[in-house]
Amino acid sequence: MRLDLISEKPKSNCGVFGIFGSESASTFTYYGLLALQHRGQEACGITTSQKLEDGKIIFHSVKGRGLVSEVFHDDKILNSALPEKSAIGHNRYSTTGSDIVENIQPFNVKYRMGNLSISHNGNLTNAKKLREELVSFGSIFRSSSDTEVILHMISRSNKEDQISQIKDALDNVVGAFSLTILTDDKLIAGRDGYGVRPLCIGEVEGAFVIASETCAFDLIGASYIRDVEPGEILVIDDEVIKTRTFKSVWLNNISPNPKKCIFEFIYFSRPDSVVFGENVDKVRRKLGKTLASESPVNSVNGEKIPVISVPDSSNTIAIGYQSQLRKENIPSKLEIGLIRSHYVGRTFIQPGQDKREISTRIKFNTVKGVLQDQQIVIVDDSIVRGTTSKQLVKLLREANPAEIHMRISSPPILFPCHYGMDFPSREELIAHKFGGEERKIEKEIGVDSLKYLTFEGMIKSVPEQQNNNYCTACFTGDYPILIDEQFHKNENE
Amino acid sequence: MRLDLISEKPKSNCGVFGIFGSESASTFTYYGLLALQHRGQEACGITTSQKLEDGKIIFHSVKGRGLVSEVFHDDKILNSALPEKSAIGHNRYSTTGSDIVENIQPFNVKYRMGNLSISHNGNLTNAKKLREELVSFGSIFRSSSDTEVILHMISRSNKEDQISQIKDALDNVVGAFSLTILTDDKLIAGRDGYGVRPLCIGEVEGAFVIASETCAFDLIGASYIRDVEPGEILVIDDEVIKTRTFKSVWLNNISPNPKKCIFEFIYFSRPDSVVFGENVDKVRRKLGKTLASESPVNSVNGEKIPVISVPDSSNTIAIGYQSQLRKENIPSKLEIGLIRSHYVGRTFIQPGQDKREISTRIKFNTVKGVLQDQQIVIVDDSIVRGTTSKQLVKLLREANPAEIHMRISSPPILFPCHYGMDFPSREELIAHKFGGEERKIEKEIGVDSLKYLTFEGMIKSVPEQQNNNYCTACFTGDYPILIDEQFHKNENE
Amino acid sequence: MRLDLISEKPKSNCGVFGIFGSESASTFTYYGLLALQHRGQEACGITTSQKLEDGKIIFHSVKGRGLVSEVFHDDKILNSALPEKSAIGHNRYSTTGSDIVENIQPFNVKYRMGNLSISHNGNLTNAKKLREELVSFGSIFRSSSDTEVILHMISRSNKEDQISQIKDALDNVVGAFSLTILTDDKLIAGRDGYGVRPLCIGEVEGAFVIASETCAFDLIGASYIRDVEPGEILVIDDEVIKTRTFKSVWLNNISPNPKKCIFEFIYFSRPDSVVFGENVDKVRRKLGKTLASESPVNSVNGEKIPVISVPDSSNTIAIGYQSQLRKENIPSKLEIGLIRSHYVGRTFIQPGQDKREISTRIKFNTVKGVLQDQQIVIVDDSIVRGTTSKQLVKLLREANPAEIHMRISSPPILFPCHYGMDFPSREELIAHKFGGEERKIEKEIGVDSLKYLTFEGMIKSVPEQQNNNYCTACFTGDYPILIDEQFHKNENE
Amino acid sequence: MRLDLISEKPKSNCGVFGIFGSESASTFTYYGLLALQHRGQEACGITTSQKLEDGKIIFHSVKGRGLVSEVFHDDKILNSALPEKSAIGHNRYSTTGSDIVENIQPFNVKYRMGNLSISHNGNLTNAKKLREELVSFGSIFRSSSDTEVILHMISRSNKEDQISQIKDALDNVVGAFSLTILTDDKLIAGRDGYGVRPLCIGEVEGAFVIASETCAFDLIGASYIRDVEPGEILVIDDEVIKTRTFKSVWLNNISPNPKKCIFEFIYFSRPDSVVFGENVDKVRRKLGKTLASESPVNSVNGEKIPVISVPDSSNTIAIGYQSQLRKENIPSKLEIGLIRSHYVGRTFIQPGQDKREISTRIKFNTVKGVLQDQQIVIVDDSIVRGTTSKQLVKLLREANPAEIHMRISSPPILFPCHYGMDFPSREELIAHKFGGEERKIEKEIGVDSLKYLTFEGMIKSVPEQQNNNYCTACFTGDYPILIDEQFHKNENE
Repeated sequence: MRLDLISEKPKSNCGVFGIFGSESASTFTYYGLLALQHRGQEACGITTSQKLEDGKIIFHSVKGRGLVSEVFHDDKILNSALPEKSAIGHNRYSTTGSDIVENIQPFNVKYRMGNLSISHNGNLTNAKKLREELVSFGSIFRSSSDTEVILHMISRSNKEDQISQIKDALDNVVGAFSLTILTDDKLIAGRDGYGVRPLCIGEVEGAFVIASETCAFDLIGASYIRDVEPGEILVIDDEVIKTRTFKSVWLNNISPNPKKCIFEFIYFSRPDSVVFGENVDKVRRKLGKTLASESPVNSVNGEKIPVISVPDSSNTIAIGYQSQLRKENIPSKLEIGLIRSHYVGRTFIQPGQDKREISTRIKFNTVKGVLQDQQIVIVDDSIVRGTTSKQLVKLLREANPAEIHMRISSPPILFPCHYGMDFPSREELIAHKFGGEERKIEKEIGVDSLKYLTFEGMIKSVPEQQNNNYCTACFTGDYPILIDEQFHKNENE
Repeated sequence: MRLDLISEKPKSNCGVFGIFGSESASTFTYYGLLALQHRGQEACGITTSQKLEDGKIIFHSVKGRGLVSEVFHDDKILNSALPEKSAIGHNRYSTTGSDIVENIQPFNVKYRMGNLSISHNGNLTNAKKLREELVSFGSIFRSSSDTEVILHMISRSNKEDQISQIKDALDNVVGAFSLTILTDDKLIAGRDGYGVRPLCIGEVEGAFVIASETCAFDLIGASYIRDVEPGEILVIDDEVIKTRTFKSVWLNNISPNPKKCIFEFIYFSRPDSVVFGENVDKVRRKLGKTLASESPVNSVNGEKIPVISVPDSSNTIAIGYQSQLRKENIPSKLEIGLIRSHYVGRTFIQPGQDKREISTRIKFNTVKGVLQDQQIVIVDDSIVRGTTSKQLVKLLREANPAEIHMRISSPPILFPCHYGMDFPSREELIAHKFGGEERKIEKEIGVDSLKYLTFEGMIKSVPEQQNNNYCTACFTGDYPILIDEQFHKNENE
Repeated sequence: MRLDLISEKPKSNCGVFGIFGSESASTFTYYGLLALQHRGQEACGITTSQKLEDGKIIFHSVKGRGLVSEVFHDDKILNSALPEKSAIGHNRYSTTGSDIVENIQPFNVKYRMGNLSISHNGNLTNAKKLREELVSFGSIFRSSSDTEVILHMISRSNKEDQISQIKDALDNVVGAFSLTILTDDKLIAGRDGYGVRPLCIGEVEGAFVIASETCAFDLIGASYIRDVEPGEILVIDDEVIKTRTFKSVWLNNISPNPKKCIFEFIYFSRPDSVVFGENVDKVRRKLGKTLASESPVNSVNGEKIPVISVPDSSNTIAIGYQSQLRKENIPSKLEIGLIRSHYVGRTFIQPGQDKREISTRIKFNTVKGVLQDQQIVIVDDSIVRGTTSKQLVKLLREANPAEIHMRISSPPILFPCHYGMDFPSREELIAHKFGGEERKIEKEIGVDSLKYLTFEGMIKSVPEQQNNNYCTACFTGDYPILIDEQFHKNENE
Repeated sequence: MRLDLISEKPKSNCGVFGIFGSESASTFTYYGLLALQHRGQEACGITTSQKLEDGKIIFHSVKGRGLVSEVFHDDKILNSALPEKSAIGHNRYSTTGSDIVENIQPFNVKYRMGNLSISHNGNLTNAKKLREELVSFGSIFRSSSDTEVILHMISRSNKEDQISQIKDALDNVVGAFSLTILTDDKLIAGRDGYGVRPLCIGEVEGAFVIASETCAFDLIGASYIRDVEPGEILVIDDEVIKTRTFKSVWLNNISPNPKKCIFEFIYFSRPDSVVFGENVDKVRRKLGKTLASESPVNSVNGEKIPVISVPDSSNTIAIGYQSQLRKENIPSKLEIGLIRSHYVGRTFIQPGQDKREISTRIKFNTVKGVLQDQQIVIVDDSIVRGTTSKQLVKLLREANPAEIHMRISSPPILFPCHYGMDFPSREELIAHKFGGEERKIEKEIGVDSLKYLTFEGMIKSVPEQQNNNYCTACFTGDYPILIDEQFHKNENE
C-alpha cells in the first residue's frame, strides 16, 4: 500500500520545470523537481542539452518510475563531464491504468529542426480529434498521452521557423497546458489562453528558470520575476540571456477572462508558493476565515472549542478559521488533535483485515487529551469520495469527543475535472451521490454537523474575484473550455 | 543524504514490542513497530514462536536494515502457515560505526532452557565489566551490543527455573533497560529499577501486549492497562492468559525514586502517546506555557507577534507558548511560518555545494507572507549542535522578518547521556561550547534573542515533579545510575 | 565488469521471435527468447495482443535491460488473465552508446490501422536517407534505431490494406532484416531479399512460430517447417491457422543470389541450431576439418599433439580439426586444456591491477597436466581485436607447453560489417592493423605459429558454396548490398 | 528456478580460503572465493583484520546470500583505507531449510584472547553431543551450524595460549574439517586426522595462502607449496612470514590411514585443480579409461560410435573413455551431442507445465546431426536421484539415436555422506531404490544399457590406491569416522 494513495484528494497531473543558460542545468532541475514533488509522485524525468566539442548538440535524458529521490539516486546522472546549458524536468501523477513507461515525460524526439523535448502540466480537450487526424495522415503514436499530440502538431506544421511551428501547434490544441519545451538552442515556456495551470518565471545566477510553483525557486535560490501570462509563448535563447529581454509570442485565442484553477489555491499548490500572483498561504487563511464567518460553531457550555486540522493540508485553513472565531468572540482554541506519521515510509504492506481502516490509523493518530469530552471542530479543505473522512471521524470518536463538527473550505465537488485534476468517476463523488445535501453527507460521514463553504464565500476569498477569473467547473459543471468529446485519459491505450 | 539525519536532535536507541497469546502475533508486532518507527529507523526485526504439529517450538526471525516498511515489504513474511502464539519486535537507531548486521535485534539464541529472544531499549552502564568477566570464563560474543551481555548472564545463571535465571541476570546488570524477552512458553517484560525508559502493558483481542509507547496500542486497537513498573519483571504465559492475573517478580535493587528520562517528554515520545502515565502532548503544552511565562516576547508596536514552530516536533510547544502569551495579554498569534516537506522521500543525493544548507532548504521552506517585517518568535524543543538551528535562522532571514526571537522548551544540553540517548560528543554540544551562556549562543545562531527554559521551569512542567522522579543528567551532569566506566557504544567492535 | 564483454567476438544485433494462434503466446515467446539469448544479452522485450470481452484488441508489452531471466523474473508478467492469441519478442545486443531505453524492442505504436509492434534483426543501410526524408515531411523519431524507420514507412504508405503497406515499406528499405511484426489480427514475418540473417518457421500445438534459429523451436517442442525465404513476407492470421496454408507476398527486388551471413555458421548461431537449412554443428566441424587439411601441425617427436579448443565456442571446430589430423595419420589427441568457469555470474568487480588479464583468468584456467611440455594446437573460430587471444596465450605459457600453435577457422577479419554484426572500428581489428599478415599477427599474439583458414577453404566448407550465396564482406570488403552512406549506429542520438 | 539446482549432483558444503601477510588480503580473498565458487553458491563472506594507528586490531566482515560476484558487487568493500594484513573467506552451499543469515561464514566472535573468525569445510559427527554439553554449561548458540561448536570449544578451553586452545578444541571434535581461522595476529589452517576434505598451502607476493583447491592459487598467481597434512594445525604469523618456516601442531588422533573423499576426484573439485596432491583432470581421465576397459560399447555395424559427455562435468571422463576405446580398436569418436546453455542466467521462472522437463531443456539441447541413427554412448560421472538422467535420455531420444548406452564413472551411490556432501535422503537415491541393480536402473532411466564403474575399477584409477586411503562410504556404507548419533544438519534450528 502506498501511503500517498490513502488520501482521497484529487491529484494534479504534473509539475514542470525548465532552465536555460546554466552549466548546472541538470542539478538545478533536480532540485526544482524535488520542490515540486507534491505535484506528481508516480514518475519523473530530466532532459538536458549539451554541446559537444564539435558544436553538435546532444540531448541526454533520465526518466523513471518513482520519486525524484528514487529515480535520481546516483550522483553520476547529474555530474556530466560535458558543459550543460539547459534542461527541462517533469513530475508525473497517473492512475495505474496508464502507468506505462512510454508515458513518462519529458518526451524526447528528433524532428526536422533537431531535438525537441517537452514537459506538460494540464490536459488537452481536443486531443482525441487531433490524434485521429494525425493518425489518418500517417503519424504513429508511442504513448497514450495527449502531450504526444503537441509534438506531432509541431513537427507537422508547415511553418518555417521553430517558434512559428510551436505557435501553430499551440493555436490548434484546446485545453489546459503549462509547458516547458527544450530545443537545440532554446527553452520555450507556453501557457494556454485561460491560464488554467500556474507557470512562473524566475532567475538564478544569470540563468532564467521556469517552474509550476515558486517553491521550486526558493529551493534553488532563484528570484521570482513574474508569471508566464495566459496565452503567452515565452522564448529564452542566448539572445535573451544577453539582453535580459524576453521574447514573447501570443496565442491567437487569448481568452479575455483567464480561467485559473481555483483548486490550486484550495489544495494543490504548496502553501509556501506564490501561485497566480498570490501567496497560497494567504488565500488558504482567507478561505478559513470566510468559512468561520459563514459556519461558526458555538460553544454549548462557554468553554473554548478546540479547532483542529487534518494535518498537514488544512493546517493554514484551521488557523484562519479559529482566528475568525476569536475575532467574533466565539470561545475557541487552535489545537493539534490529529498526529500524522511521517516515519513509516511511502509504501507498506497491510496484512490482516480492513485495509482502509488500518491505513488511516497508520497515517493518523488522535491526541486523546485534546479531544475527550470536547465539542471539536475539524477543518478540512475538501471532500472527494468521503471514505477517508469517514474513517477519520471513526478514529476521532474513539477519543470520546462530545461533538464533532466538520467544516470544509470549499463547496461540494459535484463534477469531474477535464483540465488536469484526477478525480474518481462522478458516481464515486460523495457530494454527487447525496445530491450535494449537507445533511445526508453529514450523516454518512458520521459527524454532528457538516458545513461546506458556499460558492460565494469561496469566490470572495480568492484574489481578483471580481472578474470571474477562475475555473470552478468541479463545483458548478460550468466548463469554460470546450471539450470536444469526453477525452478519457486511457482511451489511447 | 538521509533526510532524517539532517535533524540534529538526540536519537533514542530503540523501540520494543511484545505480544503473547495471539494467532496474529507477527502481524500485531509489525503494526506495533510501524507505530514505534520514530524510536529507531536504522534497522528492525521480528521474532515469532510457533508450535509444530509434534509440539516442538520453533522460532522464526526476520531482521534487516531500514524502516519497518522496507524490511517487511513482503506479505509472505507475515503470513505463516503455522499457528503463532507470541512475538517480539525491535526498532533500532544506531550510529554508522556500529551499524553491523550482528547488532540488529531481537537477538535469538538457543541455550539450555531452549530458545531465547530479546529486545532492549536503553543502555547498560556496567556492560563492559560484565562482558570482561563473561569472556574470561569462556563466553564468546558475536555483537558489540550490551544486550548480548544479558543473554549470557541468563544462560550462565545457576538458577533452576527460567524466571529466576532472568531475575538473576537483571539483578546484576546496571543501567537503563526496558526489555521484551521471548522464551519457548513465555513472554517476559522487564524494566530497570529507575524506570529510565518507558514500557507499557496493553491488551488486544484477549492477548497481552507490551510496547515502549501507547501509540503502538492505538494502531492495533489495544487498550492500555498500566506501565510495567520500575524494577518489575512481568511474566506472561498460558496461565496468565487464562487467569488474566499477571505474575510479577521484583528486582532486588528497586530505587526508591524512579529516574525517568525527562527527554522522553521533551522530544522523544510521540505526542499522541501516554508515557510515564501522562499524555505527552499535555506535558509538551505545559513546557511551552512555562517557557512563555519565563521568557515572553513583547510586541514593539502593539501588533500581534507571530509564534511559529519548527514542524512537526515543536508544534504542540508553540501552541502552549502562544496560549500563555494570550493569557498574559501579549499580542500574538499562532502562525505557520515554516513548511516541512514530506514528499521527497527518506534519502536523496545532493549534487552541488554546501550540503547542510541545501538539506535544510529541502526539508523546510518559509511562508514569506507570514514572516516579512514581523517580529517573530520561533519555538523549538531543544538545541544540540546548533548547526541546523543556524541554517534555519538563515533561511528565515531571507523572508525579511523584523526580528527573530528563539525560545527553547528545555535547558541547555551540557552533558552526554549514558542511558540510551545518542548525543554527539560533549565538544560538539553548542551549549557546552559556549559555557551555557545564552548571549553567546544567541550570537552564534544569529537570532535577536535566545531564551532557554530554566531547569526549574522544566521540572514544574512535568507530572510528579515534587518527587525528583526524573533523570536530568544531560542538563545537570548529575548521573543517577552508576557508570562503572565510560561505556562507549562501539567499544566492543 | 561483465563476463560476456570480455569476449572480443563480434556481436550479432538481435534475436527475433513470433507466435500466432496460441493461448500461451507469451509463455512460448519467453522460452523462445531464453533459447535465443546468445543473440543479444543487453535487453529484451515481449509484446502480446489480447482480446477484451468487448472484442477490443489491446497490446501489452514488457521490456527491460538485462537477460530474459532478469527482465521476466516474475510469474505475473506471463500469467495474464486475458486470453492471448499472439506475441512477438526480441533480444538485443547494443554498444554502450546507444543503450537507451527507447531503443529496446519490440517497438509498439498505434497508427491508423491500429496497433503495430515490430522486432528486427539486421541493419538497414539506407535508414539515414529514409529518416531524413521522413523527418522533412514531419515525422518525429523517439529512438536512434533504424527499425523506427520501418514503422514510419508503413504508417506513411498510401496503400489501403495493411499487408500492402508493409510490402510498400519493405520494398523501400535497403539492408539486412529479419522481422516479426504483430498487428491487431496478424503476425507477419519478413526477410530481406538477400536473406542475410536467418529466420525460420515452425509449428507447436497448432500455432505457427517464427524464430531466428531452430534452437528456439527445440526448447518449446515446436517442429521446424522451413525458412522464411529471402524476399518473402509471410502473413499468418486466423485464415492461415484454419487452412494451414501460408499467404506470402514477395518483395520486388529479390536478389537472384542470396547473400547469407557466413559468420552465422562460423560463430553466431548455436551449434544445435539449423540455420540457412543446415546444421550449424556440421558446418563448424567441416570448417575444422578443412583447416586441418590446409594447416596441420606435425608432431616433432612422434607423440600425440593435444588439440584444444577455446571453450565453448570452438569445441566443435576442434573436434573437426583433430578428426582430420587423425585421418591424415598425424599423431594427435583431443584434449581439454582450458577450463571455462561458468560459476562466477555474469558481472563482477575487479579490484587491483590489469583488469583484462584478471578477467581472462577468471573466465579461463589451464589444465596443467595436459599442456606441460606438449606441442599444443589451440583452435579458435575467429580473431577480432586479438587482445583476448594474447591474454589466453600468456595464460597457456604459464603451463609450460613446448610450443603453441594457433589455428583459426575463418580468414582474417579486415572490414566492418554493415548488416548487423557489431565489430570494433577497422583500426582496432588486429588483422587490419597488421595488413592481414599471419607472421606479424603470430608475433603479436605470441604463438609459435598462427594459421587462418583460407577464403577458399571457408567457402568449400559451407553448404551451397557453388552459388556464391554468402556475404563475406568482413573478409573481402565486397559489400553485396548498397550502403547509401556510412550508416553509423549511433548517428541519430 | 535456479539453474544450478536442476543438477542432481551431490553438493559440497564449502570452500575455504585464507591469506596472511598481504596489504591486499581482502582482494586476494575475493578472487580466491571467485575461483572456489563451484564449492558453494548459496552464500559467502570475507573477514579481514586491520591494524588501526593506535595498534588496535579490528576485524571487518562482509557476508551475504548469493554468489561472490553478487555479495561483493561494490569496489568500496574491498578498498579499505586501512592497511590489511590477513583475511579469510568462505563459500557455502546449503539446503533451503538451514538457509538463515546466522549460518553464513566466516563466523566472527570476540573471546578472551581477542577476535576469532573461522571458515569450515566439512561436517562434525559429534557436534550434537558437544553442543549439548556446552549448552548445559551455559553456552548460547546463535546458529544451527556445527562450526559454532568449534568456537565455543576454543573459548572454553582452559589452555593458556591460543594455539593450545585451538588444538584442544580440534582434538575433541570428530568428523571432517578443513579450517581457516583468523585471530588478532595469526592465520591458522587445520585439517582433520583423516584429511577428508582438501586443503592446500601456497604463496603469493611473499604472503602465505590457504585454499580448498589450487584453482584459487592459479587465479591469484600463487604458487602451490604443499597440502596441509591430515591432523596438522598450521600456524602462520609474523615470525613465519619472516623465517618462511611453518610451525605445525599435530592432532593427537592422527589416523594411520587418511580417508580422503574420493568424490572430490569424481565430481566435486575443478578439473584444473590439484587435489590430494594429484591433478583432478588426470584422475578423471583415468576413471574414464577404466570404465571403457570394464564396459566398452561395441559397434554393431562397424561405424564409429559417438561418445558424448554431459557437459561440462563429464567432459574429461568422456575423453578418457573414448581414448581407451580407440586403444582397444573399438570404432568410436568423441562428439558433442549435448549443448549446455550458459546464457540464461542463474535463475529463471518457468511458467507452464512440467517444470523438470523444461529445466532440462533450457539447460541442455541436443545436436541432432550427431545423434540421429547413431549408437551413442553417453558418459556421466555419477547418478544420484536419476531424475535428470531420465530427462536427458528423453531429450536424446527425440533426436532419434539408434541406441543409447550410458556409462557412469563411479559405482552406484547407496549411502548418505556424513562428512560434508549433501545427498538427498537414502530413499531418494535411485541406486538404493533399485537395490543397486543395473538392469532395473537402466530400465527406469530408459537407456539400452547402463554400466557403472566397479568399486575396484574406481580404486585402481585414483592415486595411492594401495593404501586404502579413501573414504568410499557413499558406495559401501563403511563409515571410517565415528558418527556418534545421526547428526542432521538442521537439527539445531
